[in-house]
Amino acid sequence: MAHFPKPLERLIEAFLVLPGIGRRTAQRFAFSLLEGNHERARELASALEQLHQGLLVCARCGQYSERSPCALCADTTRTAAELCIVAESRDIFPLEQTGLFRGLYFVLGGLINPLEGLEPERLRLEALVARLREGGVSEVILALNPDVEGDTTALYLARRLKPFAVKLTRLARGLPTGAHLEYADEATLKSALLNRRAVNAG
Amino acid sequence: MAHFPKPLERLIEAFLVLPGIGRRTAQRFAFSLLEGNHERARELASALEQLHQGLLVCARCGQYSERSPCALCADTTRTAAELCIVAESRDIFPLEQTGLFRGLYFVLGGLINPLEGLEPERLRLEALVARLREGGVSEVILALNPDVEGDTTALYLARRLKPFAVKLTRLARGLPTGAHLEYADEATLKSALLNRRAVNAG
Repeated sequence: MAHFPKPLERLIEAFLVLPGIGRRTAQRFAFSLLEGNHERARELASALEQLHQGLLVCARCGQYSERSPCALCADTTRTAAELCIVAESRDIFPLEQTGLFRGLYFVLGGLINPLEGLEPERLRLEALVARLREGGVSEVILALNPDVEGDTTALYLARRLKPFAVKLTRLARGLPTGAHLEYADEATLKSALLNRRAVNAG
Repeated sequence: MAHFPKPLERLIEAFLVLPGIGRRTAQRFAFSLLEGNHERARELASALEQLHQGLLVCARCGQYSERSPCALCADTTRTAAELCIVAESRDIFPLEQTGLFRGLYFVLGGLINPLEGLEPERLRLEALVARLREGGVSEVILALNPDVEGDTTALYLARRLKPFAVKLTRLARGLPTGAHLEYADEATLKSALLNRRAVNAG
């Protein structure tokens, strides 16, 4: 088997840790940086080194931020009455992109998945319970992935949060915008039927 | 529009220089390194920084290597009579993987593409001509991409190398192994027809 020079092979191996990246793509990345402007490789290296230094976890919501409390938690124009629960920090971004939600967030730190060893104890549940004990939250929105882990976690949270007088909701399931009914999977179509909405004449 | 913390945004931007990587994938990469083992991000950063330091261009064939001459050029078990011309250093690897070729390589440094400003003068043609003047090469194999740039470069080289008494060949074009004839494009099928081979009863 042919070999790449060591520095190149090392970079290829390092790229393999990225999600969804196989050896072919890793090779392509490495060669593009090798043959391209050296400054690009240096900038990527520097950005990687600075990644964890400038970031901390917001003590209030649990998302990665440059400060604690983070800009969202510190924003007094947002309503504390609505608390949106997400699995990971990264899930906040697409929700913010909608511009529809003006409440606060809470990062669980994962979803319950006993097979992968993610038991409820690993999640930030104590912090969530403490947050609800403070009062002021009237609705908890579960923005969890619509899959088995998300369902399991939602069920668990529903039981755990029962003592609190909060309305518990979950993001709607149904056909994604632009989908073709013809190709919709059974589970999605079932959700879409069960959650069908009245059409107003306007 | 929602924002990521600066160190995260900087890393996402840095990932965007990689070929074929859009913003979504760059975000996924960045979050996976943020949430994963910190050591992985550091290893990738370090591999990037070391990339150019340990590598040089082999003065003989033009490929990236830790030494000059490179291991291939210095390998006395390989025959100097066959010289395989590739566009880029990266093209050597798949050819070596076949284990079929035991000659030497020569990296052109690109393919002729006037639209992108890659004129013949930018290629390592003087070095190639000097190499052939040394004598000892009986066959030059053009292992260039089977596309317009590859064809243009092959034609140019055929003219330029005419004064030398070398056999000039090019990699065969035809159906790739495992292909479905039904889906083969016209150009590939034409090549496959024109280059058809006799079937021996064995």
